[in-house]
Amino acid sequence: MSSKIATIEDVALLAKTSPSTVSNLLNGRLDRMSPETRDRIERAMAQLSYTPNQLARQLKTGQVPILGLIVPSVANPFWGSFAQFVEEAACSRGYQVLLGNAGRDPAQEERYAESLSSYGVRGVIFGSSPLSLAHVQALVRRGLRAVTFDRDTAQFDRQTESEIDSVTIENVKGGRIATEYLLSLGHRRIGFLSGPLRTVSRLERLNGFRTALANAGLEPDEDLFWEGSSSHGYGDVEGAEFGRRAARELLERPNPPTALFAINDMYALGAYAGAQDLGVRVPEGVSIVGFDDITFAEVAQPPLTTVRQPLREMLQVTVSMLIDRLEGRRLGPADHLTFRPELIVRASAAPPAKALEAARR
Amino acid sequence: MSSKIATIEDVALLAKTSPSTVSNLLNGRLDRMSPETRDRIERAMAQLSYTPNQLARQLKTGQVPILGLIVPSVANPFWGSFAQFVEEAACSRGYQVLLGNAGRDPAQEERYAESLSSYGVRGVIFGSSPLSLAHVQALVRRGLRAVTFDRDTAQFDRQTESEIDSVTIENVKGGRIATEYLLSLGHRRIGFLSGPLRTVSRLERLNGFRTALANAGLEPDEDLFWEGSSSHGYGDVEGAEFGRRAARELLERPNPPTALFAINDMYALGAYAGAQDLGVRVPEGVSIVGFDDITFAEVAQPPLTTVRQPLREMLQVTVSMLIDRLEGRRLGPADHLTFRPELIVRASAAPPAKALEAARR
Repeated sequence: MSSKIATIEDVALLAKTSPSTVSNLLNGRLDRMSPETRDRIERAMAQLSYTPNQLARQLKTGQVPILGLIVPSVANPFWGSFAQFVEEAACSRGYQVLLGNAGRDPAQEERYAESLSSYGVRGVIFGSSPLSLAHVQALVRRGLRAVTFDRDTAQFDRQTESEIDSVTIENVKGGRIATEYLLSLGHRRIGFLSGPLRTVSRLERLNGFRTALANAGLEPDEDLFWEGSSSHGYGDVEGAEFGRRAARELLERPNPPTALFAINDMYALGAYAGAQDLGVRVPEGVSIVGFDDITFAEVAQPPLTTVRQPLREMLQVTVSMLIDRLEGRRLGPADHLTFRPELIVRASAAPPAKALEAARR
Repeated sequence: MSSKIATIEDVALLAKTSPSTVSNLLNGRLDRMSPETRDRIERAMAQLSYTPNQLARQLKTGQVPILGLIVPSVANPFWGSFAQFVEEAACSRGYQVLLGNAGRDPAQEERYAESLSSYGVRGVIFGSSPLSLAHVQALVRRGLRAVTFDRDTAQFDRQTESEIDSVTIENVKGGRIATEYLLSLGHRRIGFLSGPLRTVSRLERLNGFRTALANAGLEPDEDLFWEGSSSHGYGDVEGAEFGRRAARELLERPNPPTALFAINDMYALGAYAGAQDLGVRVPEGVSIVGFDDITFAEVAQPPLTTVRQPLREMLQVTVSMLIDRLEGRRLGPADHLTFRPELIVRASAAPPAKALEAARR
């Protein structure tokens, strides 16, 4: 490969045309260009191995300073903040972010990653936590660097999965502390609201919920369990609607729950509306606890008690891990980082009504 | 340029190595590769004008099937939905989306666009509506195709601005119908809440607000006007906090407003919390109307009355316009499309308290 990188002027000189005509070709402005001129320019580019701008770097190393980010949907404010934090962290290291909303569909995730890869993107963050990482493994075998979020790959026995870097919160613990808080207030009938339980993080939160109940000597009650239909996707965009329906259905059951633990804040805030539809006040009539601590949690009426993920910090680490791998600064086996969830107590949970009445007597 | 596109096998053959070794180089796996092998492969690639995958297309036409999208911040659910809709529309035409959060900073927007351009991205959607498009014009002169959102470039007298395609809602009308609705309920003291008034869309909404007041024979009252400090940026991420502070400050003034028109739904929902902080109920104590109709507007307590933008439809058109320009299907002067806003009446506005009392007597 010639050591001197050809410039647009070199191409123009060899093609016996002007640099602006070369630029027209590069920019697809072909309307007033003769086929002969175009042919001459293309031959000159080939002869000089001319590559516009960044493409030179791309061709030389096979990669570009762009990270891929694949999330369920940025229409959900949680993933919107997620994308924002990833971009801020990437930017501070001189990288940009190519975003894909894949609705948690592995086939779609794979198509995105393949496509990113064909542009020279070699590092991808997978935000969703599907039950199987088979599609990511296949990509990693073909040279992709990946970090999975919200999915502790080290916990999986398949060797290949544990070879992928991961960053996650302790979802089991998060589900447990939310439930323990409701139990501590005196609740015994606690509803569980979720979209389809087909992600690792959701199953882990459910696991934490069940563990807390079991520790308190309570049996799980199927009547207090609401799982969104999978025919509607994962409920990432419709979380608030799902939460609303869930709360309405659970609160209309013969022996309704006095508290609800929602799989995330979108469901929790939707559940506010569902309770309101039935004239049930939060927290007087029903206590609600969410998960994530999205922006709206604090300004909701009442402010939402929820489990906080230290998202900005987690994503700084995620981005650093990935870029360090890409740049060869981090070698050796995969890293699996786990962050601690924190219960943020606001005003959406209170002792159950009966306990209140009993206290008044 | 040779008519046959060289493959990885051609490169391997010429470099006297295996295709997997070539692939290692392309993927940056250089740890076990001798400098000699690397040199042979690079020479073979240069000799054959080999370009991995999509790069062939990129080099030939100078562009890639990727659209740039520059928004203030996807951490704001409005821009999150915006990005989602852009991506859906782009995807259906075989394009991907490279996202940049630029916080409405023209210098940052320009840096993003320059960088996108250097990767062969030739079309960019600008979501923010800055007072000056000078930086976009400069990019367009260098061959970029752009569509601006929320900013009717045809309204500007400078010729260059009107040469940029634009898609917008009638922001003046949106501000007017929201205010007229509050006036029709009997409100006379209506507060206006906004972040820094340094975008076209915000100024237009304010214009509509003032027009409606003037039509009703009301003088603007500076005491009812709240503009977020520009030292805190544009308030795109902190909208809810700004709205909360604004509502508190306005409602604590000696002669407080009976209704609030918020520049967008984030501010409106923040204003709910501000009213709540003072023990003022919505809509009994204060009516609130927002703008955008984000997902949360419907599940908020009470559900938010707001001005809807037909966002999905608008962005389908935006993306189509841009891709048609890029692919040479749309020629001629710039197009300026304007969509109609729609008032969505929910439960956050009611007649003012005094009128209610008067009605009860």
